[in-house]
Amino acid sequence: MGYQHWSYELMRRFCRDAFVRFGFSEREAAIITDVQLLSDLYGVESHGLQRLDRYRKDIERGVIKVDTKPEVVFETPVSAVLDGHDGMGHITGHLGMEMAIGKAKKSGIGIVTVRNSNHYGIAGYYAKMALDEGLIGLSTTNTNTIQVPTNGRDAMLGTNPIAIAMPADPVPFYFDAATSVVTRGKLEVYNKLHKPMPDCWALDSKGHPTSDAADVLKNIAAKNGGGIMPVGGGSELTGGHKGYGFAMISEIFSSILSMGATSNNTGKGGRGLICHGFMAIDPGIFGDADAIKAHLSEYLEAIRNSPKAEGAERIYTHGEKEAEARERILREGIPVNDLTMKELKLMCEHLSMDFSSYFGDYQPPEVEFDSFY
Amino acid sequence: MGYQHWSYELMRRFCRDAFVRFGFSEREAAIITDVQLLSDLYGVESHGLQRLDRYRKDIERGVIKVDTKPEVVFETPVSAVLDGHDGMGHITGHLGMEMAIGKAKKSGIGIVTVRNSNHYGIAGYYAKMALDEGLIGLSTTNTNTIQVPTNGRDAMLGTNPIAIAMPADPVPFYFDAATSVVTRGKLEVYNKLHKPMPDCWALDSKGHPTSDAADVLKNIAAKNGGGIMPVGGGSELTGGHKGYGFAMISEIFSSILSMGATSNNTGKGGRGLICHGFMAIDPGIFGDADAIKAHLSEYLEAIRNSPKAEGAERIYTHGEKEAEARERILREGIPVNDLTMKELKLMCEHLSMDFSSYFGDYQPPEVEFDSFY
Repeated sequence: MGYQHWSYELMRRFCRDAFVRFGFSEREAAIITDVQLLSDLYGVESHGLQRLDRYRKDIERGVIKVDTKPEVVFETPVSAVLDGHDGMGHITGHLGMEMAIGKAKKSGIGIVTVRNSNHYGIAGYYAKMALDEGLIGLSTTNTNTIQVPTNGRDAMLGTNPIAIAMPADPVPFYFDAATSVVTRGKLEVYNKLHKPMPDCWALDSKGHPTSDAADVLKNIAAKNGGGIMPVGGGSELTGGHKGYGFAMISEIFSSILSMGATSNNTGKGGRGLICHGFMAIDPGIFGDADAIKAHLSEYLEAIRNSPKAEGAERIYTHGEKEAEARERILREGIPVNDLTMKELKLMCEHLSMDFSSYFGDYQPPEVEFDSFY
Repeated sequence: MGYQHWSYELMRRFCRDAFVRFGFSEREAAIITDVQLLSDLYGVESHGLQRLDRYRKDIERGVIKVDTKPEVVFETPVSAVLDGHDGMGHITGHLGMEMAIGKAKKSGIGIVTVRNSNHYGIAGYYAKMALDEGLIGLSTTNTNTIQVPTNGRDAMLGTNPIAIAMPADPVPFYFDAATSVVTRGKLEVYNKLHKPMPDCWALDSKGHPTSDAADVLKNIAAKNGGGIMPVGGGSELTGGHKGYGFAMISEIFSSILSMGATSNNTGKGGRGLICHGFMAIDPGIFGDADAIKAHLSEYLEAIRNSPKAEGAERIYTHGEKEAEARERILREGIPVNDLTMKELKLMCEHLSMDFSSYFGDYQPPEVEFDSFY
């Protein structure tokens, strides 16, 4: 598939205008845009512009409500629980981390859990919000079921990412990972390429390892059994019970502490019912925050400078790839594939927006939709 | 190797007496014994009685100091930093979690980090301390280096476990896992059996996957390169960068926030320099703690009752195996292998304890020591 590069500024204007057309306020549209485009800047195409039209559909179907506000249903000086009232996950998530940050600044630590929300973009965005304030940030979310517990046949957990960020020089520590070995997007790529997957990624409808991406995607959609394995694979021999345990940590901080829907109960009754968890910690509650930052920086550098495996070029610390992608993409523009450009054009028609006022004479080529969702 | 079963009560008496002979107070000996034997009760033989003589050696070498007390070097209502002053990890760890629990009861959350400590037994013990008070408990520690970062050749991280426990019925959620795919003990077992390991566990001295346990153990001891892979394996394709990221989380909450030695700097200058992290959270800061407990219990039950993979008998939730092992071992006695029994006998000679006053006429058979360490 072909790619077009568009400047960050242009795409920011486009996204903000689109979300205002969806019915959000200028401020809300700016938040949502910021979350979505950070994903593109970090090179995570699956969670950026590619998802815009999916959000539009969820808004039209009433899964995501525009005229609603998150509500604080429980609060202490170090904690809060938000009910998202089916609003946009990004807005509720942003408020959740904003509150966690405020509590961390006053009390040292803040944990905010959220129920009845929707997909909130990349987990790492919210961890980065705390990072930008000099704090340690953690962010978790559950999702629709796709991850199968060890010895199981059916998906009972979401991709359940855990993100954590902490100040360091020259690049912050920024780790954002699904606790499943891969996400659905990886399966979609292999499916498109008609390529067999590594057989340590997914399970067929009987719970056996498989390399057939098309079959797994079909079974996931039909809730016909099977799904993606936890990090560590499908058996205890390879540590799969550990990935399943990390997925449980994400679930506890998202759905359990908020009394929201666990992954196996999301998406019911025409609602998203997604849950999130946010934690912010002021490193200053452990002493000299600058010294702690320098200590982490030194360790990260030692890891990067340690001997490489034969044939390997570089040891990355978490966050380097994202920082380098951001720099490159701000310079070269955001690469957007033909399919996404076609979606954006159709979205413009839906919203009575003038596609050419953003993208000039450019017209997306004819591309097929079916395999993307 | 043969196994003898000994009652928990007998072994508790023996351990307490031994640690008193080491120079610890009755209270300290009781704490250390409680940590060590929980490991045996949970079926984690590697961290229980099997380690007693190793602690004795570390005490004799002066790595573990008996006449020392942990010191609170920084404190806020939600946090503290302890300097272990080279004392026994169990005692410092116990104080750390005790303080975290006290802070959680007053302020809702407590995080305590520890530097200059020593090996503290199983991480899960401390998470369980919070659990026993109706709280959520987290426990992390770094260790001597054994885990190789993605693309690396040398171990730069420890096994860096993360343990988390949370109240649930009929069995609490209890997850305690090294962030490396396996621990050194697994390699030792394969080495003893002269059996090739799965090639997704360890790296040779050049950083390539290997199934030769003897070679890896030799290289680890000689710091000759290689080591154990993170959960998720040796490449990004299988999610190894995620296990490496989880290991970093353990490192941050242990050595970074305490300004202690990172894994790559432990064990230097004849000191242990191990670091720990403890967090306790009162679920009541998110609403009705009983309702939250019931919510988690219901989800765990749904997972256990979900369809099994073809050929699998049972889906476990984390903590079930430990609870069942505990019940069985309290009934049947702690299984102790011949080698450990021989060590305990030699330890008795060292400490002028009367082996027969605990174990009667039993005499351990002649067994070889070399491959265990």
